[in-house]
Amino acid sequence: MATMPDDLAALDAYLAATRDDRLESYMAFLRIPSISALPEHAADCRRAADWLVEAMTTAGLEHVEAAETGGHPVVYADWLHAPGAPTILAYGHYDVQPVDPLDLWTSPPFEPVVVRDRILARGAADDKGQVHAHVMAAGAILATRGAFPVNVKYLFEGEEESSSVHLDAWLASERDRLGADVAIVSDSGFFEGNLPAITLSLRGLMYAQIDVVGTAVDLHSGTYGGAVQNPANALATIIAGLKGPDGRIRIPGFYDDVVPLSESDRASLAALPFDDAAYQRQLGLPALVGEVGYTTLERRGVRPTLDVNGIWGGFTGEGSKTIIPAHAHAKVSCRLVADQDPDRIFEAFRSYVEEIAPPGVTTIVRYLGGGSPSLTPMDHPATRAAARALEATFGRAPVYIREGGSIPVCASFASILGLPVVLLGFTQPDDNAHAPNEWMDLRNYETAIRAIAQTFDELVDLPR
Amino acid sequence: MATMPDDLAALDAYLAATRDDRLESYMAFLRIPSISALPEHAADCRRAADWLVEAMTTAGLEHVEAAETGGHPVVYADWLHAPGAPTILAYGHYDVQPVDPLDLWTSPPFEPVVVRDRILARGAADDKGQVHAHVMAAGAILATRGAFPVNVKYLFEGEEESSSVHLDAWLASERDRLGADVAIVSDSGFFEGNLPAITLSLRGLMYAQIDVVGTAVDLHSGTYGGAVQNPANALATIIAGLKGPDGRIRIPGFYDDVVPLSESDRASLAALPFDDAAYQRQLGLPALVGEVGYTTLERRGVRPTLDVNGIWGGFTGEGSKTIIPAHAHAKVSCRLVADQDPDRIFEAFRSYVEEIAPPGVTTIVRYLGGGSPSLTPMDHPATRAAARALEATFGRAPVYIREGGSIPVCASFASILGLPVVLLGFTQPDDNAHAPNEWMDLRNYETAIRAIAQTFDELVDLPR
Repeated sequence: MATMPDDLAALDAYLAATRDDRLESYMAFLRIPSISALPEHAADCRRAADWLVEAMTTAGLEHVEAAETGGHPVVYADWLHAPGAPTILAYGHYDVQPVDPLDLWTSPPFEPVVVRDRILARGAADDKGQVHAHVMAAGAILATRGAFPVNVKYLFEGEEESSSVHLDAWLASERDRLGADVAIVSDSGFFEGNLPAITLSLRGLMYAQIDVVGTAVDLHSGTYGGAVQNPANALATIIAGLKGPDGRIRIPGFYDDVVPLSESDRASLAALPFDDAAYQRQLGLPALVGEVGYTTLERRGVRPTLDVNGIWGGFTGEGSKTIIPAHAHAKVSCRLVADQDPDRIFEAFRSYVEEIAPPGVTTIVRYLGGGSPSLTPMDHPATRAAARALEATFGRAPVYIREGGSIPVCASFASILGLPVVLLGFTQPDDNAHAPNEWMDLRNYETAIRAIAQTFDELVDLPR
Repeated sequence: MATMPDDLAALDAYLAATRDDRLESYMAFLRIPSISALPEHAADCRRAADWLVEAMTTAGLEHVEAAETGGHPVVYADWLHAPGAPTILAYGHYDVQPVDPLDLWTSPPFEPVVVRDRILARGAADDKGQVHAHVMAAGAILATRGAFPVNVKYLFEGEEESSSVHLDAWLASERDRLGADVAIVSDSGFFEGNLPAITLSLRGLMYAQIDVVGTAVDLHSGTYGGAVQNPANALATIIAGLKGPDGRIRIPGFYDDVVPLSESDRASLAALPFDDAAYQRQLGLPALVGEVGYTTLERRGVRPTLDVNGIWGGFTGEGSKTIIPAHAHAKVSCRLVADQDPDRIFEAFRSYVEEIAPPGVTTIVRYLGGGSPSLTPMDHPATRAAARALEATFGRAPVYIREGGSIPVCASFASILGLPVVLLGFTQPDDNAHAPNEWMDLRNYETAIRAIAQTFDELVDLPR
């Protein structure tokens, strides 16, 4: 059931009439320095949560609450008066990144300013702008129609920028209250400029440390060299053995659970505006190198990886010191794709490292953490619904992108709540999230409100 | 022409009669804190040189001089009244190592004490004890016979413990004055306890740094992982490619100039008292690992090596950080054996590293320094002469050992002065050289004086 033109016209008229108030409200939200990673801003995070409670109450939502988590609160609200219709769980976060280096900001990060079509402030894009668009969409829907076409639940957390430490436990404890048919996560963005996009997948992570231990102290390389295994040489041998020259990871079973790329997946990635030569030039590299048989966008978005994140051992100062290091270490992580499981990948990794570890030293492999990948296919009904809403409001069909990084909450929604996730975000790729002079395009912000409202309309027919 | 028993008896009688004075002189020499690496001890180094000048003058040597080098002086003296006889250049050093950690010394390092048969002090063994033995031998020979059987030149340097920075230039500038037939270097020791030994060879060194450079800054491993070469993975691939699992170095031409081990060389090494299991236990290693086809003593003494001395890149702190390092680095060095040339080995190393360096990053190889190996065969007439002297004075035939480390002056004597080198040293392997509580066995010291005197006698017939 698509939205009636009358409804749309009423929503548009309401949004046009309330635009100034909305901008003022957006700026008030941005003025709260809710930096979750810094303990001195804990009270500000609570203030931001309280601010949201008030705004969502004003919007007409129900059961509005700043719920305790043991850390910064989760703001919850719902509207559940569409019996028989699907239930949508909308997610965003009200906390923001730190602002260092402060001297690179052209205006103070928590004093938002509008410059032409952009609003500049920490959180303008990531993620307060998107949270605010959701709250404004809710208010506009209820003000113009008195009802949502679906049931909605909102979950705005306050610890996304500090590893969502308390979220999973809270999700598990509130599992009954959070039941839904789909999660809409608004914490992502477009692929290029104003071209709307839906992120279909995020990669997961398996992070490990390899410790290669020889003697108790460094040895003189003249006196002992040749007679003993060198832990740093052994570590290099292990790392070199993990990947082939074709870029394939050699760990037995590593690719077993990888969901194959469909032809339409490949076609949609190939259709993205992307120039290998420009990308290489921008990175300043002599060549782009990766797994044989895949394009750059596939390599960084939909294929699993193995990277050394850090390596150290022995003498690292200026000049020369002739020692055999007593021990050597590396941090090694894999980006994972659906349906690879971080724990199973770690076990395969550990077992293979132990198998290829050279003799004469002791090799220890430790798990430092992981996260599951997530994937909602392009042809999932919820993805299709969001795509229709984006095309109707932005005037162009969205592109489909694959993010190489992780938004751990997506995996949590899948594993804890059993929900498919649609990543419906509205920021531009050069929005300076996590950097000085973060900004949001106000036209995108306004259109996002319409797109969110229309997505709810399009989700009415979601199979349950 | 072997020494006449009469001469020996006179020497013995003289040495017995002067023993107390000699010990007092030895202790006076040890009291001068001639630490060459510490600028605040520069005046002490000069005092030690002046002390030697006086002692060598007293001994009856000629042209005695503390020669300027630009650093600490070289003490030179000679006695050149044996026309037609060979000329011997004797080498030692009067400077000593620093004394840290001072609190582990059982008595102050520059206040020598005699405990049973040992004299304890910094430099007692390395190398003031051996320098003093040479000066005392000279005095005893001239006092009892009025003449040496050969021409002798002495060169005692003051910068051995601080890389002999000025020595090579001084050797080159004094080449004419230093002409000789053989160099006797007394800065080595025995293999075990009181078993006399001659060190036949020292390994050389080629020390390099490999820099693998990717992007200007670290990249996010989620966003970029898979699309770019990882400098740390690339570095591991390079290092792993330098050696095979058989312990052989894969650099083309690396072994071309290695002087093959003769059967008698191998037999003499195999005859040394050495227990692999005890060595492994002492090092606390699960296994001894090295080049296939060679024993542990061969691997650490007469075979060239390749060791990573240090490696670093990316995130090395606690926990996990998901980056692709912008660059990664390793210090890599090779111990070399006769007749490998450090410069040629570096060129082969550089060329091979560049050949096997993975694409997508820039690999730079830099030379940080090197030194030539040295080797004087077991059947060299000078080696045989020293061996006869050791057997006659210590009562046992010497063993022949191969040192894995370097004494750079030996290569300098070969390359600058064109001299074969005999390493005639008298310290015990557990003498704590470079560590607290350094000691010299006074019986070895006394016998060393006889052995030095007799070595001169045995060298009379050295082919010129």
